Amino acid sequence: MQFTSEQRLDDGVREREFTLGDIPGTLWTPASAAPVPLILMAHNNGLPKADPRLMARARRTAAYGYAVATIDAPGCGERPRSAADEQARADLRRAMQAGEPVDEIFESLIGPLVEKAVPDWRTALDALLELPEIGGPVGYSGGWAALGIRLAVVEPRIVAASFFAGGYVPRAQREEARQISIPLLFLLQWDDEGNPRQRALDLFDAFGSKEKTLHANLGGHTGTPWFELEDGCRFLDRHLK
Amino acid sequence: MQFTSEQRLDDGVREREFTLGDIPGTLWTPASAAPVPLILMAHNNGLPKADPRLMARARRTAAYGYAVATIDAPGCGERPRSAADEQARADLRRAMQAGEPVDEIFESLIGPLVEKAVPDWRTALDALLELPEIGGPVGYSGGWAALGIRLAVVEPRIVAASFFAGGYVPRAQREEARQISIPLLFLLQWDDEGNPRQRALDLFDAFGSKEKTLHANLGGHTGTPWFELEDGCRFLDRHLK
Repeated sequence: MQFTSEQRLDDGVREREFTLGDIPGTLWTPASAAPVPLILMAHNNGLPKADPRLMARARRTAAYGYAVATIDAPGCGERPRSAADEQARADLRRAMQAGEPVDEIFESLIGPLVEKAVPDWRTALDALLELPEIGGPVGYSGGWAALGIRLAVVEPRIVAASFFAGGYVPRAQREEARQISIPLLFLLQWDDEGNPRQRALDLFDAFGSKEKTLHANLGGHTGTPWFELEDGCRFLDRHLK
Repeated sequence: MQFTSEQRLDDGVREREFTLGDIPGTLWTPASAAPVPLILMAHNNGLPKADPRLMARARRTAAYGYAVATIDAPGCGERPRSAADEQARADLRRAMQAGEPVDEIFESLIGPLVEKAVPDWRTALDALLELPEIGGPVGYSGGWAALGIRLAVVEPRIVAASFFAGGYVPRAQREEARQISIPLLFLLQWDDEGNPRQRALDLFDAFGSKEKTLHANLGGHTGTPWFELEDGCRFLDRHLK
């Protein structure tokens, strides 16, 4: 893991870009000298790690006392897209503009994206846990629920997870949601355009966890109220601190 | 308003029984000397104000910095029940044991109970707001969602409300839920026996409030996790402090 840039933010949080082989990533750590738990934070559907909403969430979560890491997985953010990905994204745009069904296109785009992302996230996790400033258990908190589900199933080091319901979850992940047993917080925007409410409620119902909480707020996809960020940090506190 | 008994609890909370005409009530106030906002807290379906779960919630909420008041409304707790009430309750027990539909019986029991409760709650509110230790806005937090809905519609002094979904809400209150515009927190137990989940989700959908949040947790009617009490207090803090 090579750190390529560093800046200190107003609240004492250190923000560092890194590369790990061909994986680009960002790590936020709080001012605290003691080792802190690690939160993996992924944005949905290939959005870049530099997305402003992800950056804002990561910085606040770090200021709350966590190390937060994100990467651009294959086909995500600044990493090259396959021809198949480009085709699926073009199909998706066209179908959306035409008001046609998009499930099968999402399935062909997001399914492989999740599969290809998991090994890189686990490689990053291995490297991050060797840093002296990171210690203790690992959580997942992210807009990319499908990736979080897959990681929570295959990665025993993740002990709690918070997912945002607003994104396409492939059938494979909807199925393996039943295998998840860690505590979950599931965040739903009640009127999320393009993400059917009933499908999100069915997914919440499917999670195998004994401790799972749904927070639903009025409003559209990007309208999650600010207090949910703090609620999310308290959820992590209950399970990681 | 006459105080008839007083005890000081371990956390400095003062618990006082009172009577107001023929209305018996309990008031919890925190150790703080400054006037604090008031929370009206009602238990469901005529359960007594001395119910242990209500007492525990009230004490914790008072320790958090609120005055909390509850009363036994007509037909509730220690107050006499009408012959019609007794008949409805007997019908309800018999129908439940026989596994028969109970909606119409609940309708005939809870509908009038809500109607008769509202004037006494408003009388209590008038008297409570004259106490020097109470100041500022008023919230409602209660297991009795139907009463809370009715009060929120008719009582402009209530500025935020938290309802528990686990209880029969008469058709009249399901309808007037659309008139509510104050911020709401709605608490649902995902597997609440005897309280259909879809009906609760429909009620959440119906509330007219622009700011409304649903918290759903796995488990049955009495399984609400402890952290929801703290989440509830933080919700009140956002709107009453």
